[in-house]
Amino acid sequence: MPHPSKRSEVAPFRAMDVLARANRLEAEGRDILHMEVGQPGANAPRAAMEAAQAALARGRLGYTEARGLPPLRHAISDHYRATYGVEVPETRILATTGSSAGFNLAFLAAFDPGDRIAIAAPGYPAYRNILKALGIEAVEIEVGAETRWALTPELVEAAHREAPLTGVLVASPNNPTGTMMAPDALKALIATCDDMGLWFISDEIYHGLVFQGEQQTALAFSDKAIVLNSFSKYYCMTGWRIGWMVLPESLVRPVERLAQSLYISPPELSQIAATAAFGATEELEAIKAGYAANRKLLLERLPGLGFTEMLPVDGAFYCYASVRPFSNDSADFAARMLEEAGIAATPGPDFDPVNGHAYIRFSFAGDHAVIRAAMDRLADWLPKQG
Amino acid sequence: MPHPSKRSEVAPFRAMDVLARANRLEAEGRDILHMEVGQPGANAPRAAMEAAQAALARGRLGYTEARGLPPLRHAISDHYRATYGVEVPETRILATTGSSAGFNLAFLAAFDPGDRIAIAAPGYPAYRNILKALGIEAVEIEVGAETRWALTPELVEAAHREAPLTGVLVASPNNPTGTMMAPDALKALIATCDDMGLWFISDEIYHGLVFQGEQQTALAFSDKAIVLNSFSKYYCMTGWRIGWMVLPESLVRPVERLAQSLYISPPELSQIAATAAFGATEELEAIKAGYAANRKLLLERLPGLGFTEMLPVDGAFYCYASVRPFSNDSADFAARMLEEAGIAATPGPDFDPVNGHAYIRFSFAGDHAVIRAAMDRLADWLPKQG
Repeated sequence: MPHPSKRSEVAPFRAMDVLARANRLEAEGRDILHMEVGQPGANAPRAAMEAAQAALARGRLGYTEARGLPPLRHAISDHYRATYGVEVPETRILATTGSSAGFNLAFLAAFDPGDRIAIAAPGYPAYRNILKALGIEAVEIEVGAETRWALTPELVEAAHREAPLTGVLVASPNNPTGTMMAPDALKALIATCDDMGLWFISDEIYHGLVFQGEQQTALAFSDKAIVLNSFSKYYCMTGWRIGWMVLPESLVRPVERLAQSLYISPPELSQIAATAAFGATEELEAIKAGYAANRKLLLERLPGLGFTEMLPVDGAFYCYASVRPFSNDSADFAARMLEEAGIAATPGPDFDPVNGHAYIRFSFAGDHAVIRAAMDRLADWLPKQG
Repeated sequence: MPHPSKRSEVAPFRAMDVLARANRLEAEGRDILHMEVGQPGANAPRAAMEAAQAALARGRLGYTEARGLPPLRHAISDHYRATYGVEVPETRILATTGSSAGFNLAFLAAFDPGDRIAIAAPGYPAYRNILKALGIEAVEIEVGAETRWALTPELVEAAHREAPLTGVLVASPNNPTGTMMAPDALKALIATCDDMGLWFISDEIYHGLVFQGEQQTALAFSDKAIVLNSFSKYYCMTGWRIGWMVLPESLVRPVERLAQSLYISPPELSQIAATAAFGATEELEAIKAGYAANRKLLLERLPGLGFTEMLPVDGAFYCYASVRPFSNDSADFAARMLEEAGIAATPGPDFDPVNGHAYIRFSFAGDHAVIRAAMDRLADWLPKQG
């Protein structure tokens, strides 16, 4: 009997396991407050829904060009001009089946097996898992408060001295920490990578969801950066599986060829809906105001409940807090919090194999009432811990 | 400046290049008859459209479990019972973002870099390209009329003697040849693979579109087979990017873990629409009757036009014909046929790097009027060739 491959031995996404357990408890009649999944509580914006309804009424949906429909790519180019004042030609833009496809394509097009990419820990677990599946070494650099939880030129240079790197991947705002690199810090890091001849991959999926500080795209600083983005977060379109990438000229054709075979094209209906989503700013800003209220509530209440070590939450919709006052095993802590208090959150080992045991991630992308109820339940439950 | 990876040097999908050129000619006002892309002319069935409309009206779309919504996986299990009389537990079924995702996941979960998989040439070009990108060696075995264009136990054993194989991939009905393996031939090949300890991957994407002979799923012969399927062909849902895979027990969890990181989940709306598509048999059989009429017309007219060497077209919607009476360079032949006669078809090198130069693939998934007009134009144009 043949056996599974070695490269399939990636870690499970614990957030999904927590979700599955939470769903089972709900099916048993328990009232569960969901703070585990990084998914907006709101639906896709009205304009996107209407565009999808109209396309369904027309009936015809098929394969598109692998790089996506021209109107979508045009709208993305406009978005860079309007949001960042940066000119990005449509020829460098490729629509993708979520940023998940963007990562897979970027990694395949830029890296060969054995290449080394620096990433920050804590960070998004799928990076590590996709890299492993593709034979690329994820060089996880532990970061902390002293660099605002971000990679720096010095950290990258030190890792490169140990063994040559081929690339650097940065997410800003970051999942799970919520920290964002200031434009100057981002610019300096990109310049270092350009000088060293490394690919720079910028995960900008949480752009638009910034509560303090100034967001800037890597494209403002280099036309060699690989930029990933998605309609899942700010645009509330997770289930549509639609995102985009901006590529340096040299990667456009390699990525397009890979996309033709690996994806054929992103879902056409999602492309049509996403194009319309750019026109929904008013609705989306109102949703963002809801996250801001949730964030304010968490930052007010969590420290008083004993979560005294918390990250700044510049952006995204996560609060990454130390559980050390209560436990040194966040997986156990999260499991008990779910069973006993009915609150689902994601334990830190998903994001950081080294220090994650001491942290937990609360997502505040849901309804305000859920967040408020969760704080009240914690006020009851936490005093019985630690 | 960093450079693209070696593994990104996959071949482009020439069918997509032909499509792009055909679209440019149409934009210039030319009337182009499309026979190049393997895409049904019909829309998704009414039941699928209505389910999608209803889901949009409800509004909420999000991530699903990585393996897909339970009702879809339940419907797929029912489909195996109803269509083949085979019991497949839902736990072994995973919804995928098209069969494209199924291939990527199957290859990653079953094979490590350097592994060797036997595939038939001519065959679907994305196999070769995805395998290359993943560091797996595609052992292309040239097949011909003597084995009805299919792999046999003898061919697989011979390739295994040269250097050990890890797996065998078979598509039946096949793209581009349209040939289908008889149940006995399939059973014998699977038994050989099971005996040799090789993974057997069965691409059943053209099941349902069978015009002569009996179709049987690999699952009828082995619970170790990896089966890929899709809603793109029989169910006319290409642009929805939704398919499924059936896995042996040992691959369920590896594939699920990979899917969590690489895809998160298939598009939810497409999952909902696909579930409903199983109820559209009457409509889909009428569409299939249209293909049958197209096939009949091609088999009647092409030989008289000079395409005297043609493959049998048991299933799928392709006619793979030799162009030797006119040319020994099918890429040039296809380019001239497009420019001069306004007929788009796909040259053979997409499917077969060795002998493809002598073949062309006509897709008959389009309207009958298009096929008829194409035959009339060929009757005008071909006498000026060769």
